[in-house]
Amino acid sequence: MNKLLLITFFILSAAGINAQDIYETYRAEWLKKSYGYLPELHVSKRLPLQIVQIVTDPEAYQQVRAEKVAEPESWINTPISANKGQVVDFGEHLTGHVQFLIESNIPAHAPVQIKIKFAEVPAEMDADFNNYEGSLSKAWLQEEIVTLHTLPDTVILPNRYAFRYIQFEVLASAGDMDFFVSNIECRAVSSAGEDKMSSYDSTGDRFRQITKVSLNTLRECMQTVFEDGPKRDRRIWIGDLKLQALANYYSFQNNDLVKRGLYLYAATAAENGLVYGTLFEEPSPHPQKHFPIDYCLLYNTVLTDYYEATKDKEVLEDLWVVAKYQVLNVLPQISEAGIFNPAPGWWNFIDWNDQLDKQVAVHGTVIYALEKTWELATLLNRQNELPGLPGVIASMKKAANEKYFNNDKKLFASGALGQISTASQVWMILSGAVSPKDGRNLFGRLKSERNVVQPVSPYLYHYVAEAMITCGMYKEAKELIGGYWGGMVDKGADTFWEVYDPGNDFLSPYGSFMMNSYCHAWSCTPVYFLRKYRNELFAEGD
Amino acid sequence: MNKLLLITFFILSAAGINAQDIYETYRAEWLKKSYGYLPELHVSKRLPLQIVQIVTDPEAYQQVRAEKVAEPESWINTPISANKGQVVDFGEHLTGHVQFLIESNIPAHAPVQIKIKFAEVPAEMDADFNNYEGSLSKAWLQEEIVTLHTLPDTVILPNRYAFRYIQFEVLASAGDMDFFVSNIECRAVSSAGEDKMSSYDSTGDRFRQITKVSLNTLRECMQTVFEDGPKRDRRIWIGDLKLQALANYYSFQNNDLVKRGLYLYAATAAENGLVYGTLFEEPSPHPQKHFPIDYCLLYNTVLTDYYEATKDKEVLEDLWVVAKYQVLNVLPQISEAGIFNPAPGWWNFIDWNDQLDKQVAVHGTVIYALEKTWELATLLNRQNELPGLPGVIASMKKAANEKYFNNDKKLFASGALGQISTASQVWMILSGAVSPKDGRNLFGRLKSERNVVQPVSPYLYHYVAEAMITCGMYKEAKELIGGYWGGMVDKGADTFWEVYDPGNDFLSPYGSFMMNSYCHAWSCTPVYFLRKYRNELFAEGD
Repeated sequence: MNKLLLITFFILSAAGINAQDIYETYRAEWLKKSYGYLPELHVSKRLPLQIVQIVTDPEAYQQVRAEKVAEPESWINTPISANKGQVVDFGEHLTGHVQFLIESNIPAHAPVQIKIKFAEVPAEMDADFNNYEGSLSKAWLQEEIVTLHTLPDTVILPNRYAFRYIQFEVLASAGDMDFFVSNIECRAVSSAGEDKMSSYDSTGDRFRQITKVSLNTLRECMQTVFEDGPKRDRRIWIGDLKLQALANYYSFQNNDLVKRGLYLYAATAAENGLVYGTLFEEPSPHPQKHFPIDYCLLYNTVLTDYYEATKDKEVLEDLWVVAKYQVLNVLPQISEAGIFNPAPGWWNFIDWNDQLDKQVAVHGTVIYALEKTWELATLLNRQNELPGLPGVIASMKKAANEKYFNNDKKLFASGALGQISTASQVWMILSGAVSPKDGRNLFGRLKSERNVVQPVSPYLYHYVAEAMITCGMYKEAKELIGGYWGGMVDKGADTFWEVYDPGNDFLSPYGSFMMNSYCHAWSCTPVYFLRKYRNELFAEGD
Repeated sequence: MNKLLLITFFILSAAGINAQDIYETYRAEWLKKSYGYLPELHVSKRLPLQIVQIVTDPEAYQQVRAEKVAEPESWINTPISANKGQVVDFGEHLTGHVQFLIESNIPAHAPVQIKIKFAEVPAEMDADFNNYEGSLSKAWLQEEIVTLHTLPDTVILPNRYAFRYIQFEVLASAGDMDFFVSNIECRAVSSAGEDKMSSYDSTGDRFRQITKVSLNTLRECMQTVFEDGPKRDRRIWIGDLKLQALANYYSFQNNDLVKRGLYLYAATAAENGLVYGTLFEEPSPHPQKHFPIDYCLLYNTVLTDYYEATKDKEVLEDLWVVAKYQVLNVLPQISEAGIFNPAPGWWNFIDWNDQLDKQVAVHGTVIYALEKTWELATLLNRQNELPGLPGVIASMKKAANEKYFNNDKKLFASGALGQISTASQVWMILSGAVSPKDGRNLFGRLKSERNVVQPVSPYLYHYVAEAMITCGMYKEAKELIGGYWGGMVDKGADTFWEVYDPGNDFLSPYGSFMMNSYCHAWSCTPVYFLRKYRNELFAEGD
């Protein structure tokens, strides 16, 4: 551990100061502030656009697509038995509460049991949830079963749903009874508000479309916190918060929601001062107790991003102590030689790719976050609280180039087997361990290298695009956005997906594509790139 | 058709009077009155008494019984996974709304899907509802599936349930989550109020127990109308109303509920003036459109029973026109020779026994109802409105003895094959076609006769007991009550069952014992017999 930092620890300890004591002083205040920034949810009524059926199509995304069969009004006169296989299509991804009117052909003389199934994408609707065998709770798959004794009835379903499609199925009723579903409506909710920066859009249809899907994704994930995904993992994660905040600065500018997230993380941090990777709002704010160290450190960068967007120092002053303790917890894991050796049990996210060796990417993430933290310290005139930090950063950059650079391939290589991945190069570029010019060369060499481990999540692709821009590779960044996120649009995405591998529509980190979130926070950043770097990306037109 | 009655029709028609016109004049008024008699529901909080498991026992009713395994408080510390197979037992039959608290072992990071199953009897709890293949809507089988995202949560289930036992099962959750159910409570509802005639009970334990189960049955079925059964068929049926009203006069004396039923039937009667067999209160009072003719005619006898119990003439004056039109609709089906030939499509209930030939029993029911209607006319001085009625009654009695009496067997024989049944003898006795003395002989001969079609429902057994009492056979009536209803008590009944065949615990009119109602209105009459005829039944002690 760096000597100057050891001294810092010594000073703090001698003064009897530790994270727990400091945090306990502020937790209640932070929590109160987080409630002060609780946003209003805007509610808008949405009606179905059409009735569709899900048809097999080998060319379509996940090999099925929705095909229009009727106008929604037709259901008023079509009993459920006669519209079997038909599905209500709202024409867009919605997050909200659903109600419908149900009537019977004859006065009801027996109860009816109805299953209502929700899906974000056609393949999810086509799948039988009973066949789900993935790793996460099957209860995330959105369906309800209700038993109704009196008809007609307006049924208000009990949960919030994320969906474009709804299907109704009669599970049990009397033989002579049939049912008509109508007046289906969704009270869609979001705290996003208005897009305030549409004037920054490119004039080209393709990128305007990508921007629109990007905005829809972000809007759906903006609830009482920046959610991870409104269907599954309805909670805030730091890695996603960072990207959502970036997209938000270039769209809805609902900056209170960023502040709410930052204060919530501070209020629920661990005794050692580390913020947890994810937290829940209900029944009262509480974390899920694990630390993805890359996420913990990225918390600090959300602060610097926030300042860059708002020039508001108050939040930074409030939360500086939290930023500092992220660093103080990580520093003991960095050797004198600048090597990050995470303690056993610490894990890092980086990407959803089991094949990825994360050593180099994490090393880069740590440097990146420490750099941003030093920026923060400088801004707040608090450099004296982390006096050795620039030295640590310098040693880590040096170590990266000395230990992780494969001089034959002239690429960063990770782990004992020297794995070559996009993630490693990207995070070395973002860390500043290599110059933009060298970064361009890394990207160039990746192209001709075989067996490169590629990203599978839009999350890592975000950092690929960011790294390209860092290196001035606007053309490539634009191609990536147009190709990768645009690829989802080409395949019919209403909102950007949690997982997208152009070569495998069914890839899932959870053992089943049914469980994937098809509206996912970390995929929302094209609007950030396309607006922030509009001049550079579209210097040569659309 | 009887000549005098033809003249009556002629007079009415000449004056432009028909049922529809008359009814339309009064319907709104009748409906208003029915709402005036809408009772308050008494709500009482009930808590579980014990935790049980359902165990196989060849000696037990339906071959299973509930065996205590724990105190209900134990569940606060026992996760659902560890109490699998365990069932909450409230120790009594309840009708009401259910809520419970559910907590998790760790802060919930995924939703949980829970199935809550209700059962009136252990075998229903033991059965897998998915195996149900009966004729009625499977949705009557009481279970709910709820998906919960936030824990702890107090779950208030959406329907009203009729049950003694509740089971909780986790259908889906995350692998590291477990759940604790506690604070289970039922807000039990009934409009019954207090038993006002307990001083009329016999002093013997056995018959006091039968009376108690009888009262519980009636209490559970007394809601905003006299319901058929609180689990299934949550509606009023005339045949049950009659028996419930009788039991009510000797217990809760909630006579407004009888009036509410009578006015509801009048307000929802058909255009020809016939009351329908059953009606629903929600969403607005409406009948299920079929006429069990025995039930339609028994409507009139509910009026005379009501007068006998209350000496209140106002309701009779109001509803005389309805009583009259029941008769006017049936009379054209009676030949000059006094034979009842129901029009094609008319059906009669009498009993749930597919083997039963109903010809004679229905004939008897018609005479019985016409006799009671004539009593009513006499009471109201309205004999002139049905001038030929005594003649019709006389001709029907004569016809019964001439056409339906098998002189070899000296028993009434029904249908082309001359079927001998208890139902036929009973209704001949109740009709007055035979004297009490002859009635006693009929019962005596039934004993030695082979191949007698026996009752299967407590409904018909009620009329068996009534016929015995009509014949002064108090000892036999007491034996029947003690043996048949007491048999249910011996087998553990908390409330009397819809169907009880001492030789077949699984008999069901619906193809599955799961569908049977185990708390059924028409089974509640022991309290009526035991209190009304206490002196006669217990002349020789308990």
